[in-house]
Amino acid sequence: MEYTHFDQNGNAVMVDVSDKIETKRAAVAKGSIRMSRECYEKIKNQDMKKGDVLGVARIAGIMGAKKTSELIPLCHILNLTSITVDFIMQEESCSVTAVCEAKTTGKTGVEMEALTGVQIALLTIYDMCKAVDKTMEIYGVCLCSKSGGKSGDVVYRLPEGE
Amino acid sequence: MEYTHFDQNGNAVMVDVSDKIETKRAAVAKGSIRMSRECYEKIKNQDMKKGDVLGVARIAGIMGAKKTSELIPLCHILNLTSITVDFIMQEESCSVTAVCEAKTTGKTGVEMEALTGVQIALLTIYDMCKAVDKTMEIYGVCLCSKSGGKSGDVVYRLPEGE
Amino acid sequence: MEYTHFDQNGNAVMVDVSDKIETKRAAVAKGSIRMSRECYEKIKNQDMKKGDVLGVARIAGIMGAKKTSELIPLCHILNLTSITVDFIMQEESCSVTAVCEAKTTGKTGVEMEALTGVQIALLTIYDMCKAVDKTMEIYGVCLCSKSGGKSGDVVYRLPEGE
Amino acid sequence: MEYTHFDQNGNAVMVDVSDKIETKRAAVAKGSIRMSRECYEKIKNQDMKKGDVLGVARIAGIMGAKKTSELIPLCHILNLTSITVDFIMQEESCSVTAVCEAKTTGKTGVEMEALTGVQIALLTIYDMCKAVDKTMEIYGVCLCSKSGGKSGDVVYRLPEGE
Amino acid sequence: MEYTHFDQNGNAVMVDVSDKIETKRAAVAKGSIRMSRECYEKIKNQDMKKGDVLGVARIAGIMGAKKTSELIPLCHILNLTSITVDFIMQEESCSVTAVCEAKTTGKTGVEMEALTGVQIALLTIYDMCKAVDKTMEIYGVCLCSKSGGKSGDVVYRLPEGE
Amino acid sequence: MEYTHFDQNGNAVMVDVSDKIETKRAAVAKGSIRMSRECYEKIKNQDMKKGDVLGVARIAGIMGAKKTSELIPLCHILNLTSITVDFIMQEESCSVTAVCEAKTTGKTGVEMEALTGVQIALLTIYDMCKAVDKTMEIYGVCLCSKSGGKSGDVVYRLPEGE
Repeated sequence: MEYTHFDQNGNAVMVDVSDKIETKRAAVAKGSIRMSRECYEKIKNQDMKKGDVLGVARIAGIMGAKKTSELIPLCHILNLTSITVDFIMQEESCSVTAVCEAKTTGKTGVEMEALTGVQIALLTIYDMCKAVDKTMEIYGVCLCSKSGGKSGDVVYRLPEGE
Repeated sequence: MEYTHFDQNGNAVMVDVSDKIETKRAAVAKGSIRMSRECYEKIKNQDMKKGDVLGVARIAGIMGAKKTSELIPLCHILNLTSITVDFIMQEESCSVTAVCEAKTTGKTGVEMEALTGVQIALLTIYDMCKAVDKTMEIYGVCLCSKSGGKSGDVVYRLPEGE
Repeated sequence: MEYTHFDQNGNAVMVDVSDKIETKRAAVAKGSIRMSRECYEKIKNQDMKKGDVLGVARIAGIMGAKKTSELIPLCHILNLTSITVDFIMQEESCSVTAVCEAKTTGKTGVEMEALTGVQIALLTIYDMCKAVDKTMEIYGVCLCSKSGGKSGDVVYRLPEGE
Repeated sequence: MEYTHFDQNGNAVMVDVSDKIETKRAAVAKGSIRMSRECYEKIKNQDMKKGDVLGVARIAGIMGAKKTSELIPLCHILNLTSITVDFIMQEESCSVTAVCEAKTTGKTGVEMEALTGVQIALLTIYDMCKAVDKTMEIYGVCLCSKSGGKSGDVVYRLPEGE
Repeated sequence: MEYTHFDQNGNAVMVDVSDKIETKRAAVAKGSIRMSRECYEKIKNQDMKKGDVLGVARIAGIMGAKKTSELIPLCHILNLTSITVDFIMQEESCSVTAVCEAKTTGKTGVEMEALTGVQIALLTIYDMCKAVDKTMEIYGVCLCSKSGGKSGDVVYRLPEGE
Repeated sequence: MEYTHFDQNGNAVMVDVSDKIETKRAAVAKGSIRMSRECYEKIKNQDMKKGDVLGVARIAGIMGAKKTSELIPLCHILNLTSITVDFIMQEESCSVTAVCEAKTTGKTGVEMEALTGVQIALLTIYDMCKAVDKTMEIYGVCLCSKSGGKSGDVVYRLPEGE
């Protein structure tokens, strides 16, 4: 396989998808943030109340996914038909896993939108918790699955795992 | 330590920094992306040519760091005085480590700007390499050091390590 | 009727419209700003000249309507096919009424785009007149009508009234 | 008083504040949205749970206030040092009142930032409730008070009233 | 021919394209920047290395073309299916010519997107070279050709010339 | 003189201005658009009425200048204290010259802001006139003068000329 984001002279291009047909496409990505036990318990307990960390991070992730084409230079502009961001509390490792699903009907896939939603959600958790713990680490950011388009439906990883 | 992003009623707020004084501040963050040997070698070899993956990712990281306050809901708007994004090739693990340093003279720290620069740079590498490898993973995104402000100069991790 | 912007666990989501068909859609919204007689007369008289308050507010409203999905967290990105912003001078109440019509061919309605166009136009009038009158009030911002989509054509209010 | 946003030829300008000194400035604005009893009760009850309407609207208002200079053509770019958005439930009128306070240290006032925060918060409530009630109305959007700058501290209205 | 961006009362409008059919559309635009021999030689020589001026300008042009509807008040939002930015070195005149091609499948043409890509690419060259030469001049920015839509395929100028 | 936007390894960087002092800075840029006599006369005549081409272009130029740091990858974020956009009608050549002045108190100059204001204003004229004339050409975009900062006050060209 070759890179698709360069022309024959090695210049960066936005891939030409003019002749692709529109299909329903979806992608799921995930990623985690590891923190101190103290910080983890705060998020978990607060999750029951309004204005919680994860509620803010979910909104940031959804809004971030909509901005993907502004952030990633060679991404196409896409009209997403669905975005969800969910969180899984990982007790043993004091981690929160963010899972983002993006969907569209279009000529290109939505992997980058799902990944961007995960990254912005995790950065927002970082921002809101950094007064409590400055050594948090984001890890395990990857694509779980994609469907639609030429390559069809593929599952790479399960969203539930860490 | 308590969260600073909620008021006494548990409502999210942008922290009031009106009475803080302006000081010179800097922060360094890093993060890595692991990929197949094939994909890694392509990046490494291409790095010698114009229009390379890392050149595009560097620009994306710098522009992303400037957008931090638009992406992270409770971040203050900051006029960054310096942003750099560098990459370290990690031969053994087939990883690329992005290191972002942000500076400002202001009332709040620039950790989130450095972290956002790292994340957008890594997402851009992902985007440009995903035709070659769809199982890449972003990991080890963390703060390396910060200086300025109330808490002074602190080193959490070294940028050179993975 | 139930809220559509939360899943079964009460988490905010962007509504999944993947399976909706594209139809022609339109919406009209309006809203007013009340001001001192002095301020009102200035706008009215200036309206004859170039560079007028309402000319700037019209452009701001049109550009604001295009930004709706960036501003309202759970709004879908839409490619508007038409936006107009008109103003009605209300002599008796010293008010200016902004009327915004938005159209698209898409899977979701354009009510929020029409309302956002109205709000940004009115805020721009406020900004340009605030040196003359600081007690202006924006009121009566509501949906006038919508067409297309599942619920068909409905008229809620007339744009001409105040 | 004369308009400040036009030059002697009637052309729109961004007011030149180069020679103004930086002072601490604050502004409070408010505005309300009236809805059906059914819709009102839903918001009120849901307010106890995570992911609530008002939690999302608060984040939208804060992020919207940060975008003021992008939305209002002649507004200066400002680095806000504080933004809060609060909501008051108005039982009798089935209304929710949004109150936004913005602060900065700068050469111009922050009235427009406070008003924009109110407007985007109210639009977000509208968006999230429109499946339940399409006849909601936004009203009473006005400046409550401002402090700092040449005109000093002035109170125009109380935030608590409707 | 009449202007299309004003209604019968002379008010600016975004042209209503609701009833137009979607067709494949493309446009090519170009523009040049003239500089000192010293500055020109630096760009030319550096072009062989990574991180070059033209590599950065290319990315800026592509990202700028995606922002066209945010920058030009009455432009429609378009989902571009392809963007390329190329540069031609003009030895005799010490100029660099930027050529941008934009494509979409949509209801309106993409001339403005191609022109915006050219302008932002040229401004970026200016920015990166201004420490060396402050008297650079941008000239010859024009549409080369367009295809698709009502007016069919038209060639106005050749991209290769200066 | 050397480029300032690359480090010793040839990697693009945002120049570090952390140690520069804040001074008052201003810059004036200009640029022109040449069009058919028919098109020129329309703009000129319409200029007397509300909603004119140049009124819209002026607003676009001012808003565009505020977006400079989002468009030009290595530009610093600046809080402009003043922006004006003026137009000079050039009868003989059927051209409109846009002149943009930007000011700030800051650590870096505002040349790019003035130039971006010119370019977006000219692109907006192009957009609004392209139904009448598709062969317009933008030319003569250059810096007229700058003041403040290390290099002091310099005049490169006169804004009045073409």
